[in-house]
Amino acid sequence: VGIRGKCLDGQSILECGRRLNVDIVSICGGMGTCGKCRVRVVSGRVNEHSPEEDSGMSVQDLDQNYRLACRTRPIDDVRIYIPPESLTAPQRTQVEGLELEFEPDPPFRILDVQLRPPTLGNPEADEMNLIASLDEQHGVSMRKIDLGVLQMLSPAIRDSAWKVRVALRDNEIVAVGSTESRWLGLAVDIGTTKIAAYLVDVASGRTLASKGLMNPQISYGEDVVSRITAASKSPESAANFQTMLVDALNAAVDSLCGKTGARRDHIAEAVIVGNTAMHHLFLKLPVKQLGMAPYVPALRSAIDIKARDLGLLIAPGGYIHLLPNIAGYVGADHVAMLLGTDVTSSNGIVLAIDIGTNTEICLINRGRLSSVSCASGPAFEGAHIKNGMRAAPGAIEHVILKGQRLEIQTIGGISPIGICGSGLLDVVAQMRLNDALDASGKIQAHPLVRNIQGMNEFVVSVLPDRDDISVTQKDIRELQMAKAAIRLGIVALLEAEDLCEEDIGEVVIAGAFGTFIDIESAVTIGMLPPLPLERFKQVGNAAGTGARMALVSHRRRIEARQIAERNHYIELGSIPGFNRKFAGASVMSDKPLVCR
Amino acid sequence: VGIRGKCLDGQSILECGRRLNVDIVSICGGMGTCGKCRVRVVSGRVNEHSPEEDSGMSVQDLDQNYRLACRTRPIDDVRIYIPPESLTAPQRTQVEGLELEFEPDPPFRILDVQLRPPTLGNPEADEMNLIASLDEQHGVSMRKIDLGVLQMLSPAIRDSAWKVRVALRDNEIVAVGSTESRWLGLAVDIGTTKIAAYLVDVASGRTLASKGLMNPQISYGEDVVSRITAASKSPESAANFQTMLVDALNAAVDSLCGKTGARRDHIAEAVIVGNTAMHHLFLKLPVKQLGMAPYVPALRSAIDIKARDLGLLIAPGGYIHLLPNIAGYVGADHVAMLLGTDVTSSNGIVLAIDIGTNTEICLINRGRLSSVSCASGPAFEGAHIKNGMRAAPGAIEHVILKGQRLEIQTIGGISPIGICGSGLLDVVAQMRLNDALDASGKIQAHPLVRNIQGMNEFVVSVLPDRDDISVTQKDIRELQMAKAAIRLGIVALLEAEDLCEEDIGEVVIAGAFGTFIDIESAVTIGMLPPLPLERFKQVGNAAGTGARMALVSHRRRIEARQIAERNHYIELGSIPGFNRKFAGASVMSDKPLVCR
Repeated sequence: VGIRGKCLDGQSILECGRRLNVDIVSICGGMGTCGKCRVRVVSGRVNEHSPEEDSGMSVQDLDQNYRLACRTRPIDDVRIYIPPESLTAPQRTQVEGLELEFEPDPPFRILDVQLRPPTLGNPEADEMNLIASLDEQHGVSMRKIDLGVLQMLSPAIRDSAWKVRVALRDNEIVAVGSTESRWLGLAVDIGTTKIAAYLVDVASGRTLASKGLMNPQISYGEDVVSRITAASKSPESAANFQTMLVDALNAAVDSLCGKTGARRDHIAEAVIVGNTAMHHLFLKLPVKQLGMAPYVPALRSAIDIKARDLGLLIAPGGYIHLLPNIAGYVGADHVAMLLGTDVTSSNGIVLAIDIGTNTEICLINRGRLSSVSCASGPAFEGAHIKNGMRAAPGAIEHVILKGQRLEIQTIGGISPIGICGSGLLDVVAQMRLNDALDASGKIQAHPLVRNIQGMNEFVVSVLPDRDDISVTQKDIRELQMAKAAIRLGIVALLEAEDLCEEDIGEVVIAGAFGTFIDIESAVTIGMLPPLPLERFKQVGNAAGTGARMALVSHRRRIEARQIAERNHYIELGSIPGFNRKFAGASVMSDKPLVCR
Repeated sequence: VGIRGKCLDGQSILECGRRLNVDIVSICGGMGTCGKCRVRVVSGRVNEHSPEEDSGMSVQDLDQNYRLACRTRPIDDVRIYIPPESLTAPQRTQVEGLELEFEPDPPFRILDVQLRPPTLGNPEADEMNLIASLDEQHGVSMRKIDLGVLQMLSPAIRDSAWKVRVALRDNEIVAVGSTESRWLGLAVDIGTTKIAAYLVDVASGRTLASKGLMNPQISYGEDVVSRITAASKSPESAANFQTMLVDALNAAVDSLCGKTGARRDHIAEAVIVGNTAMHHLFLKLPVKQLGMAPYVPALRSAIDIKARDLGLLIAPGGYIHLLPNIAGYVGADHVAMLLGTDVTSSNGIVLAIDIGTNTEICLINRGRLSSVSCASGPAFEGAHIKNGMRAAPGAIEHVILKGQRLEIQTIGGISPIGICGSGLLDVVAQMRLNDALDASGKIQAHPLVRNIQGMNEFVVSVLPDRDDISVTQKDIRELQMAKAAIRLGIVALLEAEDLCEEDIGEVVIAGAFGTFIDIESAVTIGMLPPLPLERFKQVGNAAGTGARMALVSHRRRIEARQIAERNHYIELGSIPGFNRKFAGASVMSDKPLVCR
């Protein structure tokens, strides 16, 4: 999966990428100074290193053929790898995350079988014919054929001259077709805002196509709580929420099949992950009890459901496997993230964080798993922020303050129209670094600070013919609440395991937002603990990766179950000294909070 | 299940029955001469025996309190049992057949369970709470809860103060409700023409209500072959055929629930039987291959299907169990009939016959089972017969020829408007006995025989202001073909087992038509072998009885599987000497055909 295209003579990779609609991050505007446009030259010849690269990039990066896209020009055909953090937000939300690097052990076996044409003397039922032939030719002893398969079996075997290909799952035939049939799989990560869908060749584990789309429920509320409230109103609204989701998935499947020439009835299995609320809404499970203390899920275990029971139009006998949830606000998507990053097999101390409106954090302490859920709120999505907006074209996503000049990077490189979560994080961090903000989160006097109607604000952009863009004291308080919730979650996990922040060997940050934040900024304002930058790893849509792993591997499903079962959930609201700890976590500084 | 009502002073049971819409057979019109209105006085006082009863009834009948309904008047409150053969056809088609006389061992267990209210410290998922509580309180180790149950579980346990009643089937919870819930079962026999549905208390095995209805597919053809042709036209027509059936069943369930005050979502299990074509159409299985040689079923084995997969509106997690088929034209209804009559456990030699448009016959030879299917055609339904009609009010259903006077009995006792199958059988038998017909089936000179447009016919009814009713030479040929097919089936079964007709210890005749034919007439024309009358047993809707047995008993389902698996199917079209044997079977006489 990638993009292929022509670059014009003398164009940099940065410029060429924009021409091909691949939007690479650049704050300095291609001047070689911000260092954000890191890409790796996989093959082909390019120009020599520029002085900016030699001085601004690490030796490790240079050794691994990393370059700055703005300083690099192809000399002949080249292959370029663009790491997720070098893509602008709208492109990164749908990236594939880590690639799969393991031997698939698919949930079903694919077998070709020759049937015996029946005669008047032996008018054997088609179903018994198939079962007996499977036994004779493959030593498979099974009795169960899905109803959907039975409904198409008789014409299928007659159309293909009594030789068919079946997909055998556990003890059941879930798909039948000609011996040309290629059974595929579908992996889906249902986010509160966005949905990522992948069409996968189950036998090889290869992703054939991927597709990003909006969650259509968004018109009923941007966050999980408003969805729960809306869906709980009546059985009809719950049914409506389910239908919206499945209609969107069916459209995504159509699109994926269109891209690849695949047939939807060749998709023999799907794996779907989402947070607990999305998981429940997709299954049409009640969510009312999720919305009030003690926030109880209707279902925690992994489950296999016939796709037809949910209206998903894949192979007639196909199953949907849903990974397990951990708690009311730590869902199957978090399990998938842990699976996709393989952090739980670590023998060290690892923190895995999925930042969003709700932030889930898992601490892996030498094989022991515990998790919390933090109500980080919608500030990262631009909500309740004066000039806030989603990560869409025109959003300021990164800034650097140089003296009194603010260099800004917008998504799509167009004039700024608002500020998205990562941009806000950068602005506030730059304010702290330049003494425009104190550790309590109060705006200080600074040439870019002005007072409008009694409220201080930091001016980010002033352009003729455009509304000014600024970050207000209130905006900063919103961000402060969000970052405090996340930091408190980290504190609670570490304290429960009697660990220090500095003990953390690795911090894995997943998800769309987590991938495009500037880690230094996050550390500067005390959202993340102060650790050497190389301990942080931004992994993109790891939940999607985990879903694809579970799709093609039975072992990974077992592993996912173990991850959920072993995971000790800590309810943040019930930790001792909550208020004191929350106050500590809200300090805007890069000082450690939990240490010896 | 029965009817309770008031008789007027001096009314006979026959008259009183008619007043209460219980239509008892009477050919002589209540004169005490035809002996057809046999009923049994179960309790209460009635008048003394009449001379007609003393002379016309057997000692055995009199000993068992059998009386003629036309000669019996109640003196105080009485309970009367009306044997199926004494009811007119429309009433008998829906009778319940044999009552269930065995200990139920239902397919699901009913358990009450107390759950632990979750807390912030232990926000256990509802599903795991239920599973753990079941384990603790009942030692039940299961992991599977149906999706439909999960979708209602959370509100159900909160509405009932954390104590619920569940139905546990194998390893799966299929229903949940308050501790007042009473789980019921539904048994259905889908005939080509009529459907019988029963609501059963699964724990006791008691039938709470029953309901007869027409098969709505009948507008697409009266016989199985025309249905197969119509349903094979397109996937839409197959879907339409399925929808028609399930809509009719849903309406029947509504009616049964209305009669008993039961709730449809308390019906936790259904058992459905039908001939192979009805079985397939109900499951939306392809039937095209059923309609052409070698007449192969898509599915032979018993199968459990979620009711929702077929649109049957019962408990959300409820299953439908379909009994196995034996062959393309020997279906699950025949298996149910064999189960319902318990003939297969016999150590003797028994013939079990289900007469209809298609007649299925099973020979039980000291534990060995073999079966045939005979295309007896629609003559018994009145089709292709000049004055033929279904067994409906106004149909002549029995006749006796006294000299030159034909005494006739119509359904409902009204003026005759046509002749139904049993009436035709009687007319032809009376013609044979009175030399109006020879053994080859050719009409002979007789006062009631006339010739119209070159064809001989036997006049049955001539009434002013009414069309004459007669039986033509062509009608007789139709009946002859039908009876020959049945007799040939019997011959083929006996020859394959090297038996003689006289070896048969019992002939069990099931089904609507089989129940209301006159056995003597059937023997007279050579449809049934000449055996002493007491060897014949008419058992009513035994398929419905078998379905109800399977509904409430897991053991009986296993037995049904064994009946189907052990059953050796003989394809009548491939027996050696077919033509010669068919000619022999078509002789209209009461001579034995297979003997030493």
